[in-house]
Amino acid sequence: MDIVFSEKHGLQDGRAELVNGELKPCFEAPVRAEMVRAALASHDLGRFRDPDPLPEGALARIHDPAFLAFLEGAWDRWSAAGRTWDALPLNWRAKGMRFDRAPDSIDGQLSHYSFDAGTPITAGTWAAVTSSAAVALTGAGLVAGGAPVAFSLCRPPGHHAGTAFYGGYCFLNNAALAVQALRDAGAERVALLDVDYHHGNGSQEIFYGRDDVLFVSLHGDPMFEFPFFLGHADETGEGAGEGFNLNLPLPAGTGWPDYRTALEHGLARIRDFAPDAVVVSLGLDTFKADPISQFKLESESYPEMGGLVAGLGRPTLLVMEGGYAVDDLGLNTARFVEGFRQVVG
Amino acid sequence: MDIVFSEKHGLQDGRAELVNGELKPCFEAPVRAEMVRAALASHDLGRFRDPDPLPEGALARIHDPAFLAFLEGAWDRWSAAGRTWDALPLNWRAKGMRFDRAPDSIDGQLSHYSFDAGTPITAGTWAAVTSSAAVALTGAGLVAGGAPVAFSLCRPPGHHAGTAFYGGYCFLNNAALAVQALRDAGAERVALLDVDYHHGNGSQEIFYGRDDVLFVSLHGDPMFEFPFFLGHADETGEGAGEGFNLNLPLPAGTGWPDYRTALEHGLARIRDFAPDAVVVSLGLDTFKADPISQFKLESESYPEMGGLVAGLGRPTLLVMEGGYAVDDLGLNTARFVEGFRQVVG
Repeated sequence: MDIVFSEKHGLQDGRAELVNGELKPCFEAPVRAEMVRAALASHDLGRFRDPDPLPEGALARIHDPAFLAFLEGAWDRWSAAGRTWDALPLNWRAKGMRFDRAPDSIDGQLSHYSFDAGTPITAGTWAAVTSSAAVALTGAGLVAGGAPVAFSLCRPPGHHAGTAFYGGYCFLNNAALAVQALRDAGAERVALLDVDYHHGNGSQEIFYGRDDVLFVSLHGDPMFEFPFFLGHADETGEGAGEGFNLNLPLPAGTGWPDYRTALEHGLARIRDFAPDAVVVSLGLDTFKADPISQFKLESESYPEMGGLVAGLGRPTLLVMEGGYAVDDLGLNTARFVEGFRQVVG
Repeated sequence: MDIVFSEKHGLQDGRAELVNGELKPCFEAPVRAEMVRAALASHDLGRFRDPDPLPEGALARIHDPAFLAFLEGAWDRWSAAGRTWDALPLNWRAKGMRFDRAPDSIDGQLSHYSFDAGTPITAGTWAAVTSSAAVALTGAGLVAGGAPVAFSLCRPPGHHAGTAFYGGYCFLNNAALAVQALRDAGAERVALLDVDYHHGNGSQEIFYGRDDVLFVSLHGDPMFEFPFFLGHADETGEGAGEGFNLNLPLPAGTGWPDYRTALEHGLARIRDFAPDAVVVSLGLDTFKADPISQFKLESESYPEMGGLVAGLGRPTLLVMEGGYAVDDLGLNTARFVEGFRQVVG
């Protein structure tokens, strides 16, 4: 198995995020990817390789060009305004506020394109997120080229980022870019399975109207958990996409038995869809010790989870998403991959 | 002239707001109201009096009962969750996120009901904001009872708060509560003139569909200024309210000559409306030294502004809103009132 990785992830190293009313050190930190790299290496789970350069036009297959231009230039505009700290937005929309006019000022644009105060833009953000996207697209190319499985060790993560918004530590939607690349390489149907603890609101938004991409997400119920305003079971797709969005919200405290039941439900829907390829948004923040999550999976749950996903028997790209219990993150990721590879060598 | 004031404003004393990517000491601080009190007293501009108790049901004339219940209980729920710092939200809505389901958790509810990270909820918030509302309603009662003018020295301010949202340092919409109280006391038409530097998005939202309340706002253009997503000139009201909302957005750097021209435009519209009473959302953050604003009014502008508003010749309630240049805030407020009282003794 190839493991695509870029050291440029370290260029995203935000100083603080807003949590519990305070600015605290970012949970989404470079050490996360380094722990996963070390564990995959020490368990001898694959060959590491660098990403290929980002193909021209690839980001615009998913993201709005004005949003991309904003992300690329945001730090320069922010620092030109004399700000020395990471860029965070000021405010967002209450009910009745307008989405149809983008403000001109840098503060206004940060507010326009974001949905939280936990996702700082820094001097290195654009380099890091385009590198992370390249990691995903290189993995998609490997799967499109015949690999039964590949691992894109993306960081920053991506599944909260939508067509034209960032947030939840995510800027570009790596998994969605990979899905689109697989479609563009000839796969007629692609399933996107999101096992990150948080709802993949960006991925849902991107594919909500499409029947060529099935989105299945298991996550903390938005009635209690971030991102709060998307991820309910009654969101089933719209237009041609009706029936191609499956949300499986789960209560706080969910352990492996109930999680497995929901996962098997989601996998059955994917089998029914008969995809040509599968992309997995692989978050490990379902773990019991995760500092910002409320599920209760054990390290022993992950080999079984990996095996169940591998049982789909489809070419699969694993895309790294969240997971913030850094001491266990590498091991849990390695265990998922081991379980997967016991089924798909 | 009666000046209604309550020392309970000091119970709202937030530690920090999110600005320029950092948590900095709140601009909206108790010293603001104390400076205004001192200046009004030293200029001998009226008799100070306490507010009457809040009439039962008065807040629900404007605000959603579920929102009021949230505000009243938010600090207890937050502190019961083990949080020791002021309560700030986590995230808000990107395009496509849902407004129709309110999350259960305290973090979810903070996110649901707010639109920025600059408006901390503290142990004293509910007592302070209900006191501020009582200050406004007592002033409305004085005007309804025949006073040609009264001054409600409200703090916290109110004009950013809507039917069911808080933000922009505002929790309950004092001016809107006063407008409604005047209507309920028999005024057939009430004009709400908002001269705070920031658009009164909450007031607009509250009265947008009504033709018995004319809302006129002069403010920094939302293309560059907070709250960014409301306050454009093309927002003219809806349904029965069509034509009863007048936004006069102005560019950064606006000085008194251009401001006066816009104000005269707004006052002409109010004269045409022929209101039985006028409520003024009186923010002094149009001042050149205001630390978070970009207009260039001088202290000498405020007597003239007060005189122009008084020239409407209608019973008028002055409701304190923003203004963050604390060294000049008291003097500028006193000068506005002096200018007003040269026309209306």
